[in-house]
Amino acid sequence: MRFIYFVGTAGSGKSSLIYAFREWLTLQGLDSVIINLDPGVEHMPYEPDVDIRDWVRVDDVMEEYGLGPNGAQIVAADMMAVNAMDLAESVQGFRTNYVLVDTPGQIELFAFRQSSQVIMDQLGKEEACLVFLADPNLCKTPSGFVSSVMLAATVHFRFNVPFFTVLSKSDLLKPEELEAIDGWSDSPDALYDALTGNIDSRALLSIELFKALESIGAYKRVVPASAVEPSGLEDIYDMVQQAVEGGEDLYDD
Amino acid sequence: MRFIYFVGTAGSGKSSLIYAFREWLTLQGLDSVIINLDPGVEHMPYEPDVDIRDWVRVDDVMEEYGLGPNGAQIVAADMMAVNAMDLAESVQGFRTNYVLVDTPGQIELFAFRQSSQVIMDQLGKEEACLVFLADPNLCKTPSGFVSSVMLAATVHFRFNVPFFTVLSKSDLLKPEELEAIDGWSDSPDALYDALTGNIDSRALLSIELFKALESIGAYKRVVPASAVEPSGLEDIYDMVQQAVEGGEDLYDD
Repeated sequence: MRFIYFVGTAGSGKSSLIYAFREWLTLQGLDSVIINLDPGVEHMPYEPDVDIRDWVRVDDVMEEYGLGPNGAQIVAADMMAVNAMDLAESVQGFRTNYVLVDTPGQIELFAFRQSSQVIMDQLGKEEACLVFLADPNLCKTPSGFVSSVMLAATVHFRFNVPFFTVLSKSDLLKPEELEAIDGWSDSPDALYDALTGNIDSRALLSIELFKALESIGAYKRVVPASAVEPSGLEDIYDMVQQAVEGGEDLYDD
Repeated sequence: MRFIYFVGTAGSGKSSLIYAFREWLTLQGLDSVIINLDPGVEHMPYEPDVDIRDWVRVDDVMEEYGLGPNGAQIVAADMMAVNAMDLAESVQGFRTNYVLVDTPGQIELFAFRQSSQVIMDQLGKEEACLVFLADPNLCKTPSGFVSSVMLAATVHFRFNVPFFTVLSKSDLLKPEELEAIDGWSDSPDALYDALTGNIDSRALLSIELFKALESIGAYKRVVPASAVEPSGLEDIYDMVQQAVEGGEDLYDD
């Protein structure tokens, strides 16, 4: 089983992309199952095969502990660790090639709390990889693009598994925006130029940061994908294949 | 007016530290007001002087739009921008020296969505600084400490204002843990040693990242603070003074 974790900030389109990706896999004759790890989600475009809400639900936690949505989300995120073994057993009941994992709406609840590590260890890290969904609204500006790369690098660092970045909801971007982002992610020089076009202290900081990110290999080509069009799904599949088979330096030319 | 934004992941103790810091300011004979920018908070240890919930509430958004807690938090975060001008007017009605700003529970709702930039611009950036609360549970391990520094650097990059990091809820740490963290934040060599003590690919990655963060000045001394003891409050005050008067390189020896 190959575990593909879809991670991204709230609203970056994780669930929609997972749904589209599963449809695409099915069309290729490839079997997959979906795990929902978001205890607070209300509507999903798919029917999950394994659902953390069978054990933990944010609305139940709100009611039971008299908490608001903030507190309940934290408690629910931490409670997931307790059910990690049951969850893993439930997943192991399936015979499939690909397990698509939908992570909590807010990225920090998955990336910076301990229970996600417990769950990932329980499910098995050997065949796991992580797809980071970059938010198209954040990536529109050069400095926003650098922010997104930094956030991706931070998340990657937390999880020691192969990692790649997808420009999510790419259908929302104008062709010239898409082209600019593709250029920044493909050519260090293009990003340098875009950042220095606006010389204030932020732009200067960007370049320093960018150099640092480049030096540690966090700077990678971003692949656009859209659940709406749909597009980019085969690219995701190819990256997963390469990630699991051949290490994580997927898009180095 | 000096605006002090308290930013940190969910559960890092923003509200408690703001309350303790306000109490401390009052004891020094210094006046301050508190703005609550979290539309989803249910209980606060203080009574805010200006409250975003007078305009936007997550529970209202849940009901009105039929959304779950995830979706409602995103919508509420974005709706705050619409009320930025009214909020700023309300704040300008006060005659005070320090405005303590409590930000949304989940850091990403503040750090990676556009409305926070709109609000900060509306309130005025000249006299603003940002206090990043590092979560003590994340900082306990060397690699977790690096994650926290990376997250701080990412947030700092988003907001082009003076910035410093506080090790929050330091009372939860054992003396030896506190000493280790202080050592890592004070001496690059100590952090190198701690990271290389456990040589796997994650540790190797940590060192590269750490060097990069050091090269861009993101690596700074972390100041422990506790709302419970209380402790570290005068340190925060000193950093704010220096930040607003003398730039942001506060703890470079």
